[in-house]
Amino acid sequence: MTHPKAVLDTTGGPAAGTLIIIGGHEDKEGDRTILKEVARRVGKGRLVIASVASHEPKGYFENYQKAFADLGVTDTTDLYIEERSEAAQAEKLSLFEGAAGVFFTGGDQLRITSQIGDTPIEQRVRDIYAAGGVICGTSAGASAMCETMLVKGRGSESYQMGELRMGPGLGLIRSVIIDQHFAERGRMGRLLGAVAQNPRLLGIGIDEDTAIVVENEQFIVLGSGAVYVVDGGGVTHSNIAEAKREDVLSMYDVCVHVLGASERFDLKSRRPEPRGALALRNTPPLEDASKPEKEASDEGGSRK
Amino acid sequence: MTHPKAVLDTTGGPAAGTLIIIGGHEDKEGDRTILKEVARRVGKGRLVIASVASHEPKGYFENYQKAFADLGVTDTTDLYIEERSEAAQAEKLSLFEGAAGVFFTGGDQLRITSQIGDTPIEQRVRDIYAAGGVICGTSAGASAMCETMLVKGRGSESYQMGELRMGPGLGLIRSVIIDQHFAERGRMGRLLGAVAQNPRLLGIGIDEDTAIVVENEQFIVLGSGAVYVVDGGGVTHSNIAEAKREDVLSMYDVCVHVLGASERFDLKSRRPEPRGALALRNTPPLEDASKPEKEASDEGGSRK
Repeated sequence: MTHPKAVLDTTGGPAAGTLIIIGGHEDKEGDRTILKEVARRVGKGRLVIASVASHEPKGYFENYQKAFADLGVTDTTDLYIEERSEAAQAEKLSLFEGAAGVFFTGGDQLRITSQIGDTPIEQRVRDIYAAGGVICGTSAGASAMCETMLVKGRGSESYQMGELRMGPGLGLIRSVIIDQHFAERGRMGRLLGAVAQNPRLLGIGIDEDTAIVVENEQFIVLGSGAVYVVDGGGVTHSNIAEAKREDVLSMYDVCVHVLGASERFDLKSRRPEPRGALALRNTPPLEDASKPEKEASDEGGSRK
Repeated sequence: MTHPKAVLDTTGGPAAGTLIIIGGHEDKEGDRTILKEVARRVGKGRLVIASVASHEPKGYFENYQKAFADLGVTDTTDLYIEERSEAAQAEKLSLFEGAAGVFFTGGDQLRITSQIGDTPIEQRVRDIYAAGGVICGTSAGASAMCETMLVKGRGSESYQMGELRMGPGLGLIRSVIIDQHFAERGRMGRLLGAVAQNPRLLGIGIDEDTAIVVENEQFIVLGSGAVYVVDGGGVTHSNIAEAKREDVLSMYDVCVHVLGASERFDLKSRRPEPRGALALRNTPPLEDASKPEKEASDEGGSRK
């Protein structure tokens, strides 16, 4: 895959590509519903596995390489950056040649943004996205997709003022804030806290082994868990600006949607849609995703 | 405290008494905000500590006895039922003489309902409530308060069809379903699942060391955590009736309120109220609850 019109998408409008944003612990040995969808979209192109989020990257690449090879993606490269200075090296940039997709693994979202933010590598990622490629992120890689990302905040408790940390993310998706390992780590409290800070951001909590496939400012849910959408647009009261640091968040009239596999959501209208009501670009019906090899090659040839 | 008009409250209307419903792990050694409020309402009356929910009741009574004695409640009795047949014994019933309150400890909510449901002991509890006493429950004791109670269902994951168990509770509070250890055990998924089954029930999730004080079909929040109110009245779509057992719940347009200490909620209108907007019967302003001893004796004398 080449990128004749590789441009930075700074418009905030819909990009040509696809985001696959995964809540962590996606199945790698069973049905692999999510990785199959990644494989279908990468086709015969190259997939860059970016383990830059990890402090201990050993094994990450090998696991994904094997899982994707079984799904027909044989051209995978291993992108790891120990120091930010490497993010401009020709050797690292060459890993992106012919890439149809990038897959950010888990770890620490701050490592992703601090190591590759505003570097030639980040530009390569944006180029692939703008040219119609697929950018995937799981766990920390999911959080890093956002304009403002969740960095830290305890799960399994209600949100207390001052305990949440956010930071500037890659900005591949705008106007949303994403949390992962969502039900598993009891993160409703922290996502509510994030949304309370500015309900302009739509909160999206993604369970493990669950993903949203984002195109055209719409998404569809994939995998075994649920996706929670937290819409603070109608909130009538919140104490977030007045409360003391140790106070608990209070917020009235939050709208929550819970979506399962194959359900769709429109990010512009902020409305869920019944199954099948939206047509996603680049997307043969997901019901057919159980035949990945054939479609993967079809797709690999016809995209772009 | 005597009960000249001890009648079973079967009207479903507001009872004369107070419920204090606690999300578990209420502080017993520090500020004890919640136990202080219990003590203030029991005054010089007797408090029956009902550890019937526990399979291993040893120590429960002694811990509460000590915590309450420090707060001025010196007349506590230990109600434990090994077998249902004991729930009619004169010796057990005598524990309720002069009782101004009952406190159900944690354990298994099914033990509470199966051991005392439809027995003379349950009647004593209702009598105390109907006559203006305070009925408290923490953890399993909180769940058992409801008409239909949550019995079982995994936390820390999204709700899957068929994994939730509910059962008939004591019915001291109607039209709500209560979950406890709420943020701590990641139980939003299971509460959403319970509400989806019939949005007539308002879901109330209570964090640890947090309580709702219910009077007059209104409640006020007490303690260090948050209370989540899940209102399914406006839900536009749910798959709960059609989905297969292993499917994940999907539900659109759930309204969620998060309330912190001192915030109030009206159960009739289903609306949160800003601080101080409602006046609860039997309740001097809670801001004064920091002076428990004095008020406890005042209250003990003036109630009823």
